[in-house]
Parts: sequence; C-alpha cells; structure tokens
Amino acid sequence: MWQKLLDPALRALIREGTLVLHLPDGSRRCHGDGTGPPVSVRITDPGLIGRLVRNPALAVGEGYMDGTLTVEGDDLHGLIALGVRNLAARNGAWWHRLAERGRDWARVVRQFNPGWRARANVAHHYDLSGAFYDLFLDADRQYSCAYFARPHMTLEEAQAAKKAHIAAKLLLRPGLRVLDIGCGWGGMAISLAREHGVRVLGVTLSEEQHRVATERVRAAGLSERVEIRLADYRSVEGTFDRVVSVGMFEHVGVPHYREFFCTLRERLAPDGVALVHTIGRAAPPGSTNPWIAKYIFPGGYVPALSEVMAAVERAGLWQTDVEVWRLHYAETLRHWHARFEANLGRARALYDERFCRMWRFYLVACEQTFRLHRQCVFQIQLARRQEAVPLTREYLYRGAAVAQAAE
Amino acid sequence: MWQKLLDPALRALIREGTLVLHLPDGSRRCHGDGTGPPVSVRITDPGLIGRLVRNPALAVGEGYMDGTLTVEGDDLHGLIALGVRNLAARNGAWWHRLAERGRDWARVVRQFNPGWRARANVAHHYDLSGAFYDLFLDADRQYSCAYFARPHMTLEEAQAAKKAHIAAKLLLRPGLRVLDIGCGWGGMAISLAREHGVRVLGVTLSEEQHRVATERVRAAGLSERVEIRLADYRSVEGTFDRVVSVGMFEHVGVPHYREFFCTLRERLAPDGVALVHTIGRAAPPGSTNPWIAKYIFPGGYVPALSEVMAAVERAGLWQTDVEVWRLHYAETLRHWHARFEANLGRARALYDERFCRMWRFYLVACEQTFRLHRQCVFQIQLARRQEAVPLTREYLYRGAAVAQAAE
Repeated sequence: MWQKLLDPALRALIREGTLVLHLPDGSRRCHGDGTGPPVSVRITDPGLIGRLVRNPALAVGEGYMDGTLTVEGDDLHGLIALGVRNLAARNGAWWHRLAERGRDWARVVRQFNPGWRARANVAHHYDLSGAFYDLFLDADRQYSCAYFARPHMTLEEAQAAKKAHIAAKLLLRPGLRVLDIGCGWGGMAISLAREHGVRVLGVTLSEEQHRVATERVRAAGLSERVEIRLADYRSVEGTFDRVVSVGMFEHVGVPHYREFFCTLRERLAPDGVALVHTIGRAAPPGSTNPWIAKYIFPGGYVPALSEVMAAVERAGLWQTDVEVWRLHYAETLRHWHARFEANLGRARALYDERFCRMWRFYLVACEQTFRLHRQCVFQIQLARRQEAVPLTREYLYRGAAVAQAAE
Repeated sequence: MWQKLLDPALRALIREGTLVLHLPDGSRRCHGDGTGPPVSVRITDPGLIGRLVRNPALAVGEGYMDGTLTVEGDDLHGLIALGVRNLAARNGAWWHRLAERGRDWARVVRQFNPGWRARANVAHHYDLSGAFYDLFLDADRQYSCAYFARPHMTLEEAQAAKKAHIAAKLLLRPGLRVLDIGCGWGGMAISLAREHGVRVLGVTLSEEQHRVATERVRAAGLSERVEIRLADYRSVEGTFDRVVSVGMFEHVGVPHYREFFCTLRERLAPDGVALVHTIGRAAPPGSTNPWIAKYIFPGGYVPALSEVMAAVERAGLWQTDVEVWRLHYAETLRHWHARFEANLGRARALYDERFCRMWRFYLVACEQTFRLHRQCVFQIQLARRQEAVPLTREYLYRGAAVAQAAE
C-alpha cells in the first residue's frame, strides 16, 4: 500500500533536480525534472517506505542513520541539496504541507520551556563527551557560526574574528561587568576577560560545559575575573554593563522571547549594551525540521526577524544594529564536517556507527540549509538608551579597514 | 465644565517636569513633579480648554497655530519635551489612553491607500511651493534624514554623506538600472547618475516635484540617463538592478506593506539589491500623532521594525542588513528649524502666520520626538539572493576609515 503512495508523494516533492530511487523489491524509479546531476538512493528496508510517505523530513534522516537508506557515492550533500531546494520551493504532497502547517501552529506548545525542560534539552546535546566536540570544533571549542572576515581564513582565525567582532559591538572597557548567557565551554568569557580586562559571569545549563569551562578559567589564571555558573539565565540577579548571548537564543522558544528580552533588559545597566547572536530564518515564521527536533536540538527553533523584533520592542529595548550573516555558517559547517570526517576513527571509538551517521547527517543538512535555503545568523545589538552606542557603525570596521589599507 | 476636567486630565498627563498654566480667567495652576525648568503656558481662548481635555495631542498644536496657546519665552522645545517625556512614560488620563488604543486599531482603515488617496496625501504636503522648501532644506533639497558621519558636519555635508552611504549600500556600477521610488525633487537620482554612471527612473506622485526634478535633470545635462515620471510606484513595469526608496515608505500604510515589498521584489532583477530608508519606531506598533496626521502627513505612519520585517519575509526577500540611525534626524531637524527661523520673513511672504507657526511646531515636535522618544531611521538593505551583497559590511566603511587613519 505504501509503495503505491510513494510515487505520488515523490512526484509532488521532487520537482526540481533528479532522484533515482532503488526500492527493496529491485524496482527503480526516477523523479524530478531531469536537471542537475542525478542523486541515486537505495532503500533496503521495506518498512522505511511507509515512513518516507508519511513524513519524509524525518524518515530520510532516520533511514540514513540506520543504514537502510544509502546514497550512491555517499553523496549526502547532493541528496540533502535536492531535498532543501524542493522544500524551499514549497513542493510536497498535500499531507506534508498540512503536517508542516500543524507543526507551525504547535510551536507554542512544543517550545514551552520551563527550567526542567530547558535542562533536559540542553543535556541532550551539550552533555556529550567533550572529547567528541574536539573532533570537529576549533581549538577554543566555539560551537557557533564563525566570521570569515577575510577569504581563506582558517576556522581558528574565523572564530577569533567572530569573538573580536562581538567584542567590538559590546564596546568593552577594562573593569566592565559582562553577563554571558549560554557560555558554552567558556571560550567567549575567557577571551573577553583576557583581551579586554572585563569581569564575566558565564551561565550554562550543561554540567559538562560548566565543569570544562570552570577548569579552563582556572588554567587561564582568570578565576578572579571570570565565574562560570551552572544556572538558568532567568535565575541571575544584579545588573551588568554588557550582556552577550551567542548561539543560545535558538533554545529559548517563541513563547519565551518576551521573557528573554525583559530579563535581558532587567540585567542591563541603564547605559548598558547587549549583543544577541542567533541563527535566523530570512523567511516568515515556520517550524523546526522534525529530524533536527528529534535527534539534535529538542526544543530548538530558528526565529524570523519579525518574531525577535516584536519581543525586543515590547521589552522596551532599542535595537541599535541588526547584522545579517549569510553563508558564514555554511562555511563554518563545511569546516566542521571536514574535521569530523578526518577524525571519524576517533569518533567511532567514542560513539556507535549510528550516532556517527546521525552526526554526519546533521552537519551536512545544516550546511546545505545555510547554503541553499533562507537560513542565516542575526547579530542584534541592543541598548536601553539610544546614546549607549556611537552614532555610526564605523567603529566596528576601523581596525579591519586600516589593516587592509596598510597591506 | 471643561475647566473642572482640566485639572484631573493634566494631573494624569504631566507627572514628570513642571508645567505652569495661565488660564483665560486669570487663574494659574501648576502640574508635574516640580523637576526641571518650568514651562509656562498661557491660554487665551476659553474654547481651547475643552479641546485640550478631550485630545491634548491635537489641541496643543492647534492652540499654538492659532496663537491661543503661547509659551513664555517662546520655549516650544521645552513645551514639547514636557509632552514627549510624559507620553513616553505612558502618562495621560484614561480617556486619552483609550483614544490612543482606538487610533492604534483604526490604522488599518485610516491607512488604506489606493492611488487616488496616495495622490491627495502627497499633494497635501509636497505640492507646497518649492521656494518654501528652499527656506529650510539644504541646497540639494534632501527632505529626509541626513547622516552626520563626522561631528560638526554642515547640513550640506551630512546630506551628501547620506547619499554616499546609500550609494555604497546599493553597490553601484556604471550602466546599472536604478528605480528611485519617491524621488522627491530628484537630488538622489541626479547624484547617483552623475557620480556612479547609473541610469535612473525616479517616480513621484507630486506634480510640483515632478516639474522641478525634470528641470533639474535637464539643467544637469542628464536627460539621457535620468527619467522622472509622475506615477504611482505600483504602475512601474520592467526590472531594475537596484531599487532605492528614501523617505517614502512612511506614506505607504501598514495594510500596503506586503504590496510594497512584493512590488519591490518584482521590480528587482535576480541579482538585484534594494535599499529602503524610512523613519521607524524603536517600540511596538502604534499610531500616528493626530496633529501630525491632520496637518502634516495625512496617511503617514512610522512603522516598528517587526511590522516591516513581517512584510519583507512574506515577500520572499532577504534582509541583508538593517542599520538603525539614532539622533541623526534630531540633528537634521535642528538644522532645518534654525534655517527656517533665519528665513522666517521670507516664509511669511509666502504663507500666512498660522501656517508658519504650524511649520515651526512640526519641525520642533519632530526634533524632540527623535531626541527624547523612541523614534529613529531604519535603512533596510534587501536582495533576492543572499550572494547579491558582500559577506561582510566592511565595504561600507572602507573609504571613511582609511580617510580618518590618514588624518
């Protein structure tokens, strides 16, 4: 029965590009408009067919993880590009489009994110072995988009450029008090304290990150100026001259956006400046891909700028600048994926083959989404008073341009 | 009866600062918390009192125009600052707050803006004598926010900096085709054609602006490359490499935002880049001040970024950069007001005293709103493809920073 539905489902979904599908019964079918290099997929488990008909966005990834769906030449980039392009063109059977509408509407419930749930969601991803993250991240373990300010930068250089760009936006001076919401393994907190003489309180919900970050602060001799706290950002008290949050807003959930920015405003001194760095969609509000939500980021959501801004406005904050990074994350993920493949043997020593295939699918799917679909990074600078930041944005580029002129 | 209601109304409205009020019956009352320099207002028409109770946001301006409300020392800045500060703090009697909610909700009707209404709204303001605009604008008649890239720039320099900054954002090359939506008296179109070798179609709904701009294009010897058309932007056909719109979006109306950005997308070539420059509010969506709506900009509205972005997202455009200019317009209006006062004798030769008082109230009210309330300018760069603009924003600042380093 499912095999009969597979044809119309794929006809509706794959309208651009070329998909060659080999089914378990030995049959072979072709879908798409015949353009581009063909992507050849083999399905070995008859049970996967029904799941592909019902929810392809979930089942393709699951089939790849299980090894019941393979791509000729292991051309995962090609397979995902085919899917992303067609989903971007809003192709798909009516039941897929209906299900997506349902997911859009359900996000208020799915993203309800009290402390206990936030902790569980964070543990799912960030409490993985630190050794595993070292297999694909840069030496400073920056697990967010790098900034390729110059072509051909290495990943390490681009992550340093990201931290420097954020530091410039924060207008730091020695002695200022900085709150880092979602501090990860402490790389940003340590850099800001060491290079700008500020005092930092970093908060994370991940026990593994808290342990590693605390140890790194100690090793850097910065325990006097940097504190890493295992806490929900909503429990922090006091005021800070600067607030920075990099790659954490994706976990907040739309129903909590106003709470997030109101908390941020409360923590900010009257002349304070904040910088929120988050993945964003250059498209209307939508929902999270079901495979990503199930396996990678439970509770995660990529916001549209209109959603973020509505919350910023109601919190009474000035949005003093909005930068939109395009393609930087595709490039970052390309680096992560290359390092992951280079270290695959060590990854297999830590986790099983299914996990490794899941991780590969995650890295490639995200890279292709940033490259081909409407996904980007928003850097939103915020202040309580409009005078808190300079009149023009030139201060962000002075060093870079002068350096280039001197070359 | 109205005089009895005046006390509670003012008590609710003026909670910060000090207002001394002299009424027609010779009585005198004091409102506010006693802080700041007192603002002393004299009302000479008993009929104004009821209007002040019912709708102070309209009646204060009307009283000032009629000369039935005067400020001691002609301290209009002080009076308006008092009003803006208290409105910003959401002070006011319950019926004023209720009326404002009503205005907020009514904006969908009020801003319905088909061609005939757009023409009438435009004629109201922009068909005033060109000689009048020369009394307060810069020599190029730039009737939008200037860019004070350096402190102590003259108005002429800051308007030139504005045009240069917009040109940089448009990534111009000789021969590109540019559509200028709301071209005013042609200053932007002429500058872009002359300095960047592009071809420009400028559209305006104002007959006076069309006449003047066409004559200026001819005088500049640019008739081959610049066309000024008396037309609604919705009637333009064909595609353009670049679209620019400066200070026109304020007249579009919220119900037409999606139509505006969809039209912009249709006019834009696949690799095209657009720049929309508009006054904005760093606050939730609201309504237009009733005095401004009645006397200055019928149909005008200052959007929140969340409103603009929702329309951009649905039109399928990339927002590649959002710059927020703060205080530049306060400075621009300060210059305009100073020039207006210096040329007051010539203004009185063109229009009557009530008109001149209206214009002064307009310039000062807007200056104080930009200085003290949550009003700013959004420069929104848009593209159909994410690759249409460089990876970083450094290209916007290269010249300026290098010039400064060389100083």
